[in-house]
Amino acid sequence: MAVLCRPVVWVPENTISMEETLALASRLHSGHEKLPLVLRMIKNTGVVKRHLVQPLAQTLAHPGFEARNRLYVREARLRVPAVVEQALAFADVTARDIQAIVFVSCTGFTMPPLTSWMINELGFRPDTRQVPIAQLGCAAGGAAINRAHDFCRAYPDANVLIVACEFCSLCYQPDDLDLGSLLSDGLFGDAIAAAVMRGQGGEGMRMVANASHLVPDTEDWIAYEVKSTGFHFRLDRRVPGTMNVLTPALRTLAGAHGWDASKLGFYIIHAGGPRILDDLCHYLKVPPTAFRHSRATLTEYGNIASAVVFDALRRQFDEGLTEGSRGLLAGFGPGITAETSLGTWSCGETVRVGRQAHSSDVSHALHP
Amino acid sequence: MAVLCRPVVWVPENTISMEETLALASRLHSGHEKLPLVLRMIKNTGVVKRHLVQPLAQTLAHPGFEARNRLYVREARLRVPAVVEQALAFADVTARDIQAIVFVSCTGFTMPPLTSWMINELGFRPDTRQVPIAQLGCAAGGAAINRAHDFCRAYPDANVLIVACEFCSLCYQPDDLDLGSLLSDGLFGDAIAAAVMRGQGGEGMRMVANASHLVPDTEDWIAYEVKSTGFHFRLDRRVPGTMNVLTPALRTLAGAHGWDASKLGFYIIHAGGPRILDDLCHYLKVPPTAFRHSRATLTEYGNIASAVVFDALRRQFDEGLTEGSRGLLAGFGPGITAETSLGTWSCGETVRVGRQAHSSDVSHALHP
Repeated sequence: MAVLCRPVVWVPENTISMEETLALASRLHSGHEKLPLVLRMIKNTGVVKRHLVQPLAQTLAHPGFEARNRLYVREARLRVPAVVEQALAFADVTARDIQAIVFVSCTGFTMPPLTSWMINELGFRPDTRQVPIAQLGCAAGGAAINRAHDFCRAYPDANVLIVACEFCSLCYQPDDLDLGSLLSDGLFGDAIAAAVMRGQGGEGMRMVANASHLVPDTEDWIAYEVKSTGFHFRLDRRVPGTMNVLTPALRTLAGAHGWDASKLGFYIIHAGGPRILDDLCHYLKVPPTAFRHSRATLTEYGNIASAVVFDALRRQFDEGLTEGSRGLLAGFGPGITAETSLGTWSCGETVRVGRQAHSSDVSHALHP
Repeated sequence: MAVLCRPVVWVPENTISMEETLALASRLHSGHEKLPLVLRMIKNTGVVKRHLVQPLAQTLAHPGFEARNRLYVREARLRVPAVVEQALAFADVTARDIQAIVFVSCTGFTMPPLTSWMINELGFRPDTRQVPIAQLGCAAGGAAINRAHDFCRAYPDANVLIVACEFCSLCYQPDDLDLGSLLSDGLFGDAIAAAVMRGQGGEGMRMVANASHLVPDTEDWIAYEVKSTGFHFRLDRRVPGTMNVLTPALRTLAGAHGWDASKLGFYIIHAGGPRILDDLCHYLKVPPTAFRHSRATLTEYGNIASAVVFDALRRQFDEGLTEGSRGLLAGFGPGITAETSLGTWSCGETVRVGRQAHSSDVSHALHP
């Protein structure tokens, strides 16, 4: 059975703290009639620090869609290789062992996808399947895992590389002054994540089942407006309230396998915002600590879109788990779509003493 | 085993003939130093007629990326439902029987993907998997078939709906005056295609294997430049010459199953242009008539991007085949990527006399 191995997460060297975000919002929007509300909403995110692919001054400027998208490509090509290399090493595979690459990213657009460049430059085989997904936003992390799982079900000896490349700061739109945009300006961060799903062997989350669920009639709640200035993120105020609708879908998936979604050994949940985590905690009837990895991601990096679930999973690896522990992974995003999966923890076929601690150090070494 | 059922192809009511295209190019680019070459290249495409989602006057205007993308969404929502409904009917399934939708389109961009809208509006189940692919261009038709095949391998009872929605005319860029752009202006057409891949039963192409192949170091040869004016298609003059490199990949795939790629019962090939078809004919050592369906698509509709392979396959259905006939399907596009598959013809588990002729009529009824 397929195992999702230890993810690698890289964040850029530039950072912005909560204090800096609040000061910035106060300065930029001093005349905004809802500034106090905006500041309160940003404070409530609990995001202490975020990482940005450019220094703040450049982030705030909008050099045009074309220049931004070039920057996206340049930074992705510069940063993705080391993240991928480490993810392959964590899974004890090489580029030649990979049969498919699922590349998810909603913050830039290229055709051909960056998978073509990766195959040319990073040693992957010319017959590697390319699965680029640009349109599932934050849910794409869960979707990438699920499509990788499906691929391993189809070809049980296959290994799939997953890459989530999100430079959310390149979608900052200075002229968007609605509440959803101003909140987003204080919430999202940049990161690249990668992980290998091994068809055979491996240490990590052994995939049991996956599912997708769309909340009816919410397709406008999280959406891009496509303009000459690029992608404009639209966030409806009703989004955080969708967890009561999605919880039954999570329960159904778990129940179909005789599992109780409220009593699992680990939870890897998309940290869209604090309310999403709080509400899901409430509806699933789990203690707040159950989502500690997602909360840590949110606090330290902000919402890093499709990369969140990989960062939360990375933290779960650092903490460790016992063989066979049951868990739930869930990505949420536009649609509104939940991409969820169940897995049991696999400590790997070979016990490698000291490796786990080591690999964690290496992961951090990727953070400049 | 999974069977790719009869596709439906819809083309818009507005048309432009070869003569009109040549007259238009002569008028718009009367001062272009390479006009005679451009006219010769367009003539060489052999495209007699193309269909456009808007009347010609609107097609030639560029109202901005935002307006164009809105038009893309409006037209897709207006046109996709009937195409999908007919594709479901051809496969004898309903929307509730579909487990996944692979939606490919490179000529507009939405987040969430149009699959979310389809689930909300067209009766699909909320747990339908959404696989939107925007970055594989013309190769996405073959990729969609291959990912649907993989999904059916993973879940043998699943049915997958494939939709290819290409409004190439919405990527017309009046200011792009290089040879590749001017040729493209005379080559591409608009269409929507849909087909169901049934995990069990069904009449059509029974999937045997699929493969992907990237031609090394050609990623800039077919590409979008992303600008404030939208997607700008870049076509390198070396593209048509790639068939000698791709033919061995097709031979290898066929050979792995003991098949001779030169001696198959049917060929469904992406009609990127006449040279691609001519060259592949030559390297595969098959007679020109082997690609008659692709040539008919090119002649009647132009290059309709990811929809080509579905239109060629539709023509193969119209012509009919004997049970067990072996065939090859190949989509080519940016990367440069070939997405290929092998299949044997299945006449279906139940012989339905008269149905085939009927369904073909219904397909044409969708053409206004």
